[in-house]
Amino acid sequence: MQRVGILYQPSRVESRRLAHTVHEVLDRHGVAVWQGSAEDEQALGEAATSLDLLITLGGDGTIVHAVHAVSPAGVPILGVNLGRLGFLAEVEPSEIHSAIPRVLEGDYLLEERMMLHAEVYRDGQRLLVGDAINDAFMGRGRTSRAVRISVDVDDHYVMTQTADGIIVSTPTGSTAYCLSAGGPIIAPDVDCLAVTPVAAHLAVAHAIVIPADRVLRLRLIKGDDAVLTVDGQTDVDLAPGDEVHCTQSEVTAKFIRFGTDGYFYETVLRRLRWPDQGPIP
Amino acid sequence: MQRVGILYQPSRVESRRLAHTVHEVLDRHGVAVWQGSAEDEQALGEAATSLDLLITLGGDGTIVHAVHAVSPAGVPILGVNLGRLGFLAEVEPSEIHSAIPRVLEGDYLLEERMMLHAEVYRDGQRLLVGDAINDAFMGRGRTSRAVRISVDVDDHYVMTQTADGIIVSTPTGSTAYCLSAGGPIIAPDVDCLAVTPVAAHLAVAHAIVIPADRVLRLRLIKGDDAVLTVDGQTDVDLAPGDEVHCTQSEVTAKFIRFGTDGYFYETVLRRLRWPDQGPIP
Amino acid sequence: MQRVGILYQPSRVESRRLAHTVHEVLDRHGVAVWQGSAEDEQALGEAATSLDLLITLGGDGTIVHAVHAVSPAGVPILGVNLGRLGFLAEVEPSEIHSAIPRVLEGDYLLEERMMLHAEVYRDGQRLLVGDAINDAFMGRGRTSRAVRISVDVDDHYVMTQTADGIIVSTPTGSTAYCLSAGGPIIAPDVDCLAVTPVAAHLAVAHAIVIPADRVLRLRLIKGDDAVLTVDGQTDVDLAPGDEVHCTQSEVTAKFIRFGTDGYFYETVLRRLRWPDQGPIP
Amino acid sequence: MQRVGILYQPSRVESRRLAHTVHEVLDRHGVAVWQGSAEDEQALGEAATSLDLLITLGGDGTIVHAVHAVSPAGVPILGVNLGRLGFLAEVEPSEIHSAIPRVLEGDYLLEERMMLHAEVYRDGQRLLVGDAINDAFMGRGRTSRAVRISVDVDDHYVMTQTADGIIVSTPTGSTAYCLSAGGPIIAPDVDCLAVTPVAAHLAVAHAIVIPADRVLRLRLIKGDDAVLTVDGQTDVDLAPGDEVHCTQSEVTAKFIRFGTDGYFYETVLRRLRWPDQGPIP
Repeated sequence: MQRVGILYQPSRVESRRLAHTVHEVLDRHGVAVWQGSAEDEQALGEAATSLDLLITLGGDGTIVHAVHAVSPAGVPILGVNLGRLGFLAEVEPSEIHSAIPRVLEGDYLLEERMMLHAEVYRDGQRLLVGDAINDAFMGRGRTSRAVRISVDVDDHYVMTQTADGIIVSTPTGSTAYCLSAGGPIIAPDVDCLAVTPVAAHLAVAHAIVIPADRVLRLRLIKGDDAVLTVDGQTDVDLAPGDEVHCTQSEVTAKFIRFGTDGYFYETVLRRLRWPDQGPIP
Repeated sequence: MQRVGILYQPSRVESRRLAHTVHEVLDRHGVAVWQGSAEDEQALGEAATSLDLLITLGGDGTIVHAVHAVSPAGVPILGVNLGRLGFLAEVEPSEIHSAIPRVLEGDYLLEERMMLHAEVYRDGQRLLVGDAINDAFMGRGRTSRAVRISVDVDDHYVMTQTADGIIVSTPTGSTAYCLSAGGPIIAPDVDCLAVTPVAAHLAVAHAIVIPADRVLRLRLIKGDDAVLTVDGQTDVDLAPGDEVHCTQSEVTAKFIRFGTDGYFYETVLRRLRWPDQGPIP
Repeated sequence: MQRVGILYQPSRVESRRLAHTVHEVLDRHGVAVWQGSAEDEQALGEAATSLDLLITLGGDGTIVHAVHAVSPAGVPILGVNLGRLGFLAEVEPSEIHSAIPRVLEGDYLLEERMMLHAEVYRDGQRLLVGDAINDAFMGRGRTSRAVRISVDVDDHYVMTQTADGIIVSTPTGSTAYCLSAGGPIIAPDVDCLAVTPVAAHLAVAHAIVIPADRVLRLRLIKGDDAVLTVDGQTDVDLAPGDEVHCTQSEVTAKFIRFGTDGYFYETVLRRLRWPDQGPIP
Repeated sequence: MQRVGILYQPSRVESRRLAHTVHEVLDRHGVAVWQGSAEDEQALGEAATSLDLLITLGGDGTIVHAVHAVSPAGVPILGVNLGRLGFLAEVEPSEIHSAIPRVLEGDYLLEERMMLHAEVYRDGQRLLVGDAINDAFMGRGRTSRAVRISVDVDDHYVMTQTADGIIVSTPTGSTAYCLSAGGPIIAPDVDCLAVTPVAAHLAVAHAIVIPADRVLRLRLIKGDDAVLTVDGQTDVDLAPGDEVHCTQSEVTAKFIRFGTDGYFYETVLRRLRWPDQGPIP
């Protein structure tokens, strides 16, 4: 690894301080450093092709921004958790001094997480494309009135829901908005997409889990004020008749991991703070 | 009953036709008639004080508009159901010819439904007041990012939720948005308010049912783009720090009913189309 | 208060020790003491009529047993919480030395909680009667096969559910089994019963909240191996055709409280450990 | 196909009549026929090795019995749906005359559904083994008192739940008990197991979806009266300390299908009777 990026949150003192520390550690190891603000996604995107690694100093939101900017260029991410609840981060700030040398020596696992590719169609024209590490949400905009959405898988009609909206999520996104809406928690290595309605009206409103290689088609049937939101960050206005097609993206997000592939069960699920936890006696 | 109002949906042929029929029936009984469009809530509000009864020809949405306009004046409502799923309406269009004479002869029950009174406070100033027959919703606006809301009952702190929002509903509203969010169905004569989170993040997110004579206080802790929506029809922008106080309104909605007070169990619950229904053999 | 009972858990050292301490404190105040084991409900029932107060040293389960034995005689209960999660207890063990004098001086509130009266009918014959402070459950017995139950309110047919079973609960019981099954949390002073299905098959399976003065009738339509369980402690075998009628009991459970009537919001809800709690800043 | 089995429900007239019809059709095609009662699983198991196909005349319960008896011998099943809601059956009784010739001519798809292998361990000794097409449930027996179960995946501790029980299900089983407990609907070709708690106490009780090649270990921590139920048909008493290990079975269930592999979306999901269905206009 010859050139490593540091992404910090300019509004957070702890993140700026940590950036300084990480910079020093990398200098000591003779590694070239790029440093940038998480609020300037464009600069990060331009730097991406020159980076061998990106270290993020923030919460899961910072990592989601980083994925959008650097994953298309194949840059792996090491997330340092400054957030309250980090599902994507790998190390705590106190672990930085041991973690960075391990990464530089190649003593880590590279985990690839699938991403979701979403395309918006209006009158047969493709309006927009985007990739999501967590989810795409089609649903109500500003006012709390339900919208109506139909769902097809490949060319098979599945259902129509009247709801606040429908979330399409990756396994990674299953612990984000999907979880709040009552969806399942999905291990990252299950090759699938989950479709979860939010506040569905008068329906047996269960999440549906389908293989990742299917094409999922959401169509806005009714809703004056609907939007598509990608990863909770990008919004697009939708009109009735608009369709969103979701498939597995060709891009994957790459994360540095130090544990075994059981870390999801040992670490991530623990972050949900289930009551009464402890090892089997 | 000397003067009866007819409220029709101008965009629906069936509603306009039915208005004509109802008008004729009322004429035949020598009753003065006021007729107006459901899209002109102001005209209805002005007519309200002169009306002894309002007949609505539409769905539950039409009745909700009618309640806002005429219930402060104490006018009872007879809902004729033109909607798909009518929880508030009492008769089907085919029953009009028998229903109107019964009402004029006083052969009916008058059901009073409690309403919710909501007040918005910013920096100690009261910004807005409104009454709801169904619910008040504090939550996210256009973008699907969770907001953070704290809940107090009287002066007792209850909880803080990170969620799409929180619904405060009357028993009447329990079959509306509250139901979609997983809340309970509450019989109209239980004297209470229900507090139901929508898509709560990482919480044991149950509805809470409290006595109607309590003061419920929602405070927006975090959320750049939050709104208050009353009965799914009126929207108000909120800023962090804003509070919404909910109490039982002094206004009640009055509905004409022909059945016993068991109609809720016999009729309304049936409209939820639970599977495998049928009388006990 | 001239004669006070102490109910301890013989299998728990902490409970036996605390019984000794409480006995001494009562002796010092010149109060006559009855002391008994929570495993001997019969002895407690016989002592009940001579008691002015019962102090329970255990968890909520101990209090539920105590209610069954002493509430018909009108004896108030002061629960000392030795359990993990006490919804019914009022004081922690460390508070005993201040709590007992306050009770003896009459410096407390007496809270009455409604109870549920359940009667089992087979072929028109009343088989059994019982009162519950929490709930009555009609459902599957040993094998995990769904049963089929119809629900009537007064004489109005409501629904038929295929499910593991149906819970009828008081507001007090809303934080017990009802909560696990997805039901609402109900403040103790809402005058109602809640009907909550457990693992309902293919249904819009919401809890239903009805006024406490209604008669609720559950009928077992199908199920070879069904039971009625009262307060999770008493079991009765049921056969298809059997009915359970639930009404508000004439007996109430009386609890000693030291706080205001807001204690439910301040104390009990806090015990649910909602995340991120703290007073409104 | 030289020898075809017919499995009928002796207690159902329609099933016996249909068996007669199917027998005649098979005779006409010169195929040898074995015919047996669904109540005699042993006879079916003994006949299995000589069968090239089994036609079941009943509901999903009949097919589950058939799978247990003939799938270890690799016999494909054609389910004729006499039940109310058939997720596993392929044809309706009226389609038999066209379906049988198609099967005999080889004009069908053979769908393989994964099964679950469950082993019960006590004190390190393997007590029992069994395969399930739907699910294995560890949970409370006769009385409605919660049990306590810990969950490990491979050797990674995941969580401990206090609940009525925990369901481990295949994708096929996701529309059975798992669905009633709030779990997701999983397409049959997602290679996974789902872990779904039933009536979990005070927990964020979501289903967890893991890859099928993991080893799932449930351990009964507390529960005097617990059972393991396999496919809702076989019960085993459990004692605290007992473990159930679930893995993907080496046996698969083979089903005759006539449609494309989209049948799950077109047919099975439709059987859930989601409201307002209809093709995208």
